[in-house]
Amino acid sequence: MTDSRRRCRCAVLGASGYIGQHFVRLLADHPAFELTTLVGTERTRGQPLAELWQLPDAALPKEADLRLESLGPSEIARRGIDVVFSGLPSGSAGPIETELARRGVNVFTNASDHRMDADVPLLVPEVNADHLDVLLRAPRRRRGAIVADPNCTAAGLVVALRAVWDLLRPRAVHVTTYQALSGAGLPGVASLAITDNVVPFIAREEEKVVQESQRMLGSVFRGSIRPSSVPFIVQCARVAVRDGHLEAVTIDAGRRPGLAAIEEAFRTFDPLAGHDLPSAPHPAVILRTEPDRPQPLRDRWAGSPERARGMAVSVGRIRWEAPFLRFFVLSHNAVRGGAGGSVLNAELALERGHVGPRKAR
Amino acid sequence: MTDSRRRCRCAVLGASGYIGQHFVRLLADHPAFELTTLVGTERTRGQPLAELWQLPDAALPKEADLRLESLGPSEIARRGIDVVFSGLPSGSAGPIETELARRGVNVFTNASDHRMDADVPLLVPEVNADHLDVLLRAPRRRRGAIVADPNCTAAGLVVALRAVWDLLRPRAVHVTTYQALSGAGLPGVASLAITDNVVPFIAREEEKVVQESQRMLGSVFRGSIRPSSVPFIVQCARVAVRDGHLEAVTIDAGRRPGLAAIEEAFRTFDPLAGHDLPSAPHPAVILRTEPDRPQPLRDRWAGSPERARGMAVSVGRIRWEAPFLRFFVLSHNAVRGGAGGSVLNAELALERGHVGPRKAR
Amino acid sequence: MTDSRRRCRCAVLGASGYIGQHFVRLLADHPAFELTTLVGTERTRGQPLAELWQLPDAALPKEADLRLESLGPSEIARRGIDVVFSGLPSGSAGPIETELARRGVNVFTNASDHRMDADVPLLVPEVNADHLDVLLRAPRRRRGAIVADPNCTAAGLVVALRAVWDLLRPRAVHVTTYQALSGAGLPGVASLAITDNVVPFIAREEEKVVQESQRMLGSVFRGSIRPSSVPFIVQCARVAVRDGHLEAVTIDAGRRPGLAAIEEAFRTFDPLAGHDLPSAPHPAVILRTEPDRPQPLRDRWAGSPERARGMAVSVGRIRWEAPFLRFFVLSHNAVRGGAGGSVLNAELALERGHVGPRKAR
Amino acid sequence: MTDSRRRCRCAVLGASGYIGQHFVRLLADHPAFELTTLVGTERTRGQPLAELWQLPDAALPKEADLRLESLGPSEIARRGIDVVFSGLPSGSAGPIETELARRGVNVFTNASDHRMDADVPLLVPEVNADHLDVLLRAPRRRRGAIVADPNCTAAGLVVALRAVWDLLRPRAVHVTTYQALSGAGLPGVASLAITDNVVPFIAREEEKVVQESQRMLGSVFRGSIRPSSVPFIVQCARVAVRDGHLEAVTIDAGRRPGLAAIEEAFRTFDPLAGHDLPSAPHPAVILRTEPDRPQPLRDRWAGSPERARGMAVSVGRIRWEAPFLRFFVLSHNAVRGGAGGSVLNAELALERGHVGPRKAR
Repeated sequence: MTDSRRRCRCAVLGASGYIGQHFVRLLADHPAFELTTLVGTERTRGQPLAELWQLPDAALPKEADLRLESLGPSEIARRGIDVVFSGLPSGSAGPIETELARRGVNVFTNASDHRMDADVPLLVPEVNADHLDVLLRAPRRRRGAIVADPNCTAAGLVVALRAVWDLLRPRAVHVTTYQALSGAGLPGVASLAITDNVVPFIAREEEKVVQESQRMLGSVFRGSIRPSSVPFIVQCARVAVRDGHLEAVTIDAGRRPGLAAIEEAFRTFDPLAGHDLPSAPHPAVILRTEPDRPQPLRDRWAGSPERARGMAVSVGRIRWEAPFLRFFVLSHNAVRGGAGGSVLNAELALERGHVGPRKAR
Repeated sequence: MTDSRRRCRCAVLGASGYIGQHFVRLLADHPAFELTTLVGTERTRGQPLAELWQLPDAALPKEADLRLESLGPSEIARRGIDVVFSGLPSGSAGPIETELARRGVNVFTNASDHRMDADVPLLVPEVNADHLDVLLRAPRRRRGAIVADPNCTAAGLVVALRAVWDLLRPRAVHVTTYQALSGAGLPGVASLAITDNVVPFIAREEEKVVQESQRMLGSVFRGSIRPSSVPFIVQCARVAVRDGHLEAVTIDAGRRPGLAAIEEAFRTFDPLAGHDLPSAPHPAVILRTEPDRPQPLRDRWAGSPERARGMAVSVGRIRWEAPFLRFFVLSHNAVRGGAGGSVLNAELALERGHVGPRKAR
Repeated sequence: MTDSRRRCRCAVLGASGYIGQHFVRLLADHPAFELTTLVGTERTRGQPLAELWQLPDAALPKEADLRLESLGPSEIARRGIDVVFSGLPSGSAGPIETELARRGVNVFTNASDHRMDADVPLLVPEVNADHLDVLLRAPRRRRGAIVADPNCTAAGLVVALRAVWDLLRPRAVHVTTYQALSGAGLPGVASLAITDNVVPFIAREEEKVVQESQRMLGSVFRGSIRPSSVPFIVQCARVAVRDGHLEAVTIDAGRRPGLAAIEEAFRTFDPLAGHDLPSAPHPAVILRTEPDRPQPLRDRWAGSPERARGMAVSVGRIRWEAPFLRFFVLSHNAVRGGAGGSVLNAELALERGHVGPRKAR
Repeated sequence: MTDSRRRCRCAVLGASGYIGQHFVRLLADHPAFELTTLVGTERTRGQPLAELWQLPDAALPKEADLRLESLGPSEIARRGIDVVFSGLPSGSAGPIETELARRGVNVFTNASDHRMDADVPLLVPEVNADHLDVLLRAPRRRRGAIVADPNCTAAGLVVALRAVWDLLRPRAVHVTTYQALSGAGLPGVASLAITDNVVPFIAREEEKVVQESQRMLGSVFRGSIRPSSVPFIVQCARVAVRDGHLEAVTIDAGRRPGLAAIEEAFRTFDPLAGHDLPSAPHPAVILRTEPDRPQPLRDRWAGSPERARGMAVSVGRIRWEAPFLRFFVLSHNAVRGGAGGSVLNAELALERGHVGPRKAR
């Protein structure tokens, strides 16, 4: 997608955090984005990210040799950064991202602050690529775009739901989660709180899953999002798993196609086929037919090609108890539900011409 | 309850198993039952149970000094055993239990073989004490009773549901589980299968929870059980927790009382108040009002008095999303959902005169 | 021990911490100490400790209904508190404890600040009761005593070593540890740092184990401690266990008694026999003869009578590879190596007349 | 190394086991070995290995599509297999491997049965490549070679020791281990035995580590191995870690070089430099200078190039407490200490001309 063009210069905000480190890993050697700048905190400035690296089992990318800098929005803009990937914590992210966009920097964010803004697409490319259109509603003074990826639980869920949405015409969706430790970032959950335990509560999580899922499954009407009115009933819990959110889903279905048709719908769901998006998994959903899958340990890294590892959503144990269709969904919370989601969003936005190297605009 | 009577002589079958050891622990110094005999396998015969003891953190009861014996039904009957507590694995339990009952020994079992038999009460005293009446349907040749406790997931669930059943008039019940390792007995789940993982499948578990819950919440009509027709939609998964099954419940409610009324119904649910059953917890349900409870680690041993530790069912995170009422339930799978359930069943049967020391009958 | 006397009024400092909560649990219904005051932080003041309770599986003591207060040394002294149990973090503990002692309050502390002070006994009653004599060196202006319990790893170690010290005449002691999560207090180790992992480092731990063990195994000469000159070679690591420090010990032995004599020495080690100290376990060491014990899960709560649960030290897998004697030691880090150690210290100090209700002095 | 030659045809025995699956993964696309045959059990015959695949996070190699066969030694020999990699359980492996060698098949085995045989090299190429010479002692009738890799704990240990052996001239070596679950194979350790626990015993492990380390660090004299006489004092324990054996090592050193010299010796240890062995890591030892490394989670996959991932041995926390040098060693038990070790052995044997495609011999 980028052979003939200069790569977009990009920075990662919150680079020393869990999502931030995944951004760095995913942007290493990226064909469209050139990672030039790592923004950390006052405390970590000057340290090579490699010294703070927390992701096990992954080879350290050369980009981790960059030193963390402490930069504000104006400095970032002055550096000629085209795109920022934000792994900042929700709360502090909002104003910084607003200011960056005002200064013409495009922001792809994992933070929740702007997810419900009318002029910010809450985007999962396989699900609601047309929501990019709300960027047109952004005020003139916002010269850069802000594009948000959803909550880590909602991200995998909506991919699976989209695959069968029209086939099943859901009247209600029940979701119960088994969420991984890394969903809480670093340092995150205390070991004494979770070893030999399950914690049936994650602050503000259920509300986000409901609201964000309804928005993403909604439609665009005259530049505005009309959220889906299908009720989501969501119960969230934390389990002692490092990565990978598992979700038990029950759809109260308005239509009752046969299992074979449903499995076919999952198996063939690949709305980004034909697009040249390096981080898009093909297919988008991996259908597991074993009796005991998907499992976090074994399915969290699903996805091909290599650059899309961790981006596929695994679905299994599909059963009818009409009118209820039940299944389990699994996705990597920090990749599909985090850094990888935003990188894919940026790839789509680049393809659509919403962002690009500055000269190209 | 037993001062003036001789205690019933009892044996534990499958005494070296996880449920078997809990039986031994719970029957130690029991006011109504005198544990005289531990039945193991051919392989373990002659060993003191103490040498095979697997329950951590519990003081070893003196009854664990008894040596395991390898005895068949006829030998057990000849020993003058009044009551047998069966921790045998489902499958092999059935014929042995039938033969014991034929020979006049009363059987309180944790195995699933007889749970659906027309003349076997599937009993949780707080929920369906009246189901004991089906014992009257037993054929003459069965001189002893068989009374079953339910599947470990169903046990805690029905206690919580009974507390609000009439108040809510459920139209459907959705249940998603986080089940403990000990639910699989010994040796059970391989550590490589579950460390850093969740396994969204337990063989035949979902079917049992549905069928047994509907039976226990059903009514007795002319000596027969009419199961409840309320649909149960159940998804079961295993998590890396030692003990304590957590369940996310959503009730599609036919009535919509206020939260205060629902909490009051849970808090005051104590149908065994006034009965002298040593293993009955008072109250039966512990209502947790913290935002993040119940938790397996912290609530599995709920229940008072001391002899009822692990018998109470903890409920928390109650929320309306009308018409759906959601909450979490937690109970100790090996106590409330295992050995403790059968001991309580035996206490109730003794009080009702269904069983007793042989001379007393 | 206290029937005829009024109980000492006592307070717990750092009551909301992990050690603090164990203090409250252990002092509940204590025959010699009356827990009247819980001191927390500015942040927790006014809250009943019960609302912050973190210890699973333990019934909540009624003393946990007390509200946390924020009190300085002078206020504590004015309250007529005889004895303070300090679960304060090392670092902030030191000056507060000094000030309390200056004002006449006796301090039994789990913090490390004063452990090496010449006039502070670093005490494990089974090991070095005679070290209480260094209290006589305290300056006049220090009217209250300060008595420290050792580092949680050293505590169990020195009990086991004392049992065979004279028999083996060690020339060097090698110790490698498997330390529990709770040794780091609350919130402690991050779950992402330790799940599926071992961390071979605990800050300043190895130095403490060496220095404190040598001091405790040293002798008192003219009121001063002469530390043992036996080298300790110590390597410490954290494992994913909730409670219970396991230690692999190898003694380079100057003498080579037979295994039977060594086992006998462990089995009969009970230097507090005949003393009326409620928290003293009898015997002090539990000798495990199984091939795979001691284990944290199964042996951490060793100790009888009931009030001494968690105070016994378990030893197993004793083998000669002359001149090296090898074995494993296990003790509950938060009980024997924490709150329980200080409570036992206070019981000894009371028996010896070093502390007591104010009127009695 | 193999461009001009046909690849050796090879089979994996015990292919459905944990080590067997690692063999398949490591032999996928191997430049010198062509994996044509997977031998399983009677029970698994006919199944594609892919259906039994247990290794998480690894992409499934195309060789896993092969179906498991149930073949005896004569059938394997008749197939024209040049080399067999044996992941059979110790005990049953011995006679099968003997028979294969008698029939001219070269055997590279992870089983312990033949490790102490006079005519079987117990080989770690970085440590004792010259031990291959004992193959010359094999009787005429044994036409194929048997080459063993050591116990998974000894494997990483001897690499680290060899790097500093001459520098330190050890008088004794103390080793205490933190061993991973996968060291016990499949199904292996029960989750209830190890969750929230450490088990300080692994059957026959300590004896193996002592005996095998002494043999590997010994010398060849007139075709025989003279084991090292340095005493090894070893204590082994299992911890709740999926992969990666951590070992605390203390060397009683006969010489006392400075830390810088020791670190340099580790850092530059690369005895296979210049050899064209695809699975050899360069360097052989990764020196970690952080305060808290090596860790199983973070260092088990150390090793480059890509084909040598998991083959490097990580060393850290090096400290003098003269005459004792202490450090921690970490290696992947199933790669460096299992399948990878045997693949590297085969690469070395091939380079030396001990094995090869049949025509080439």
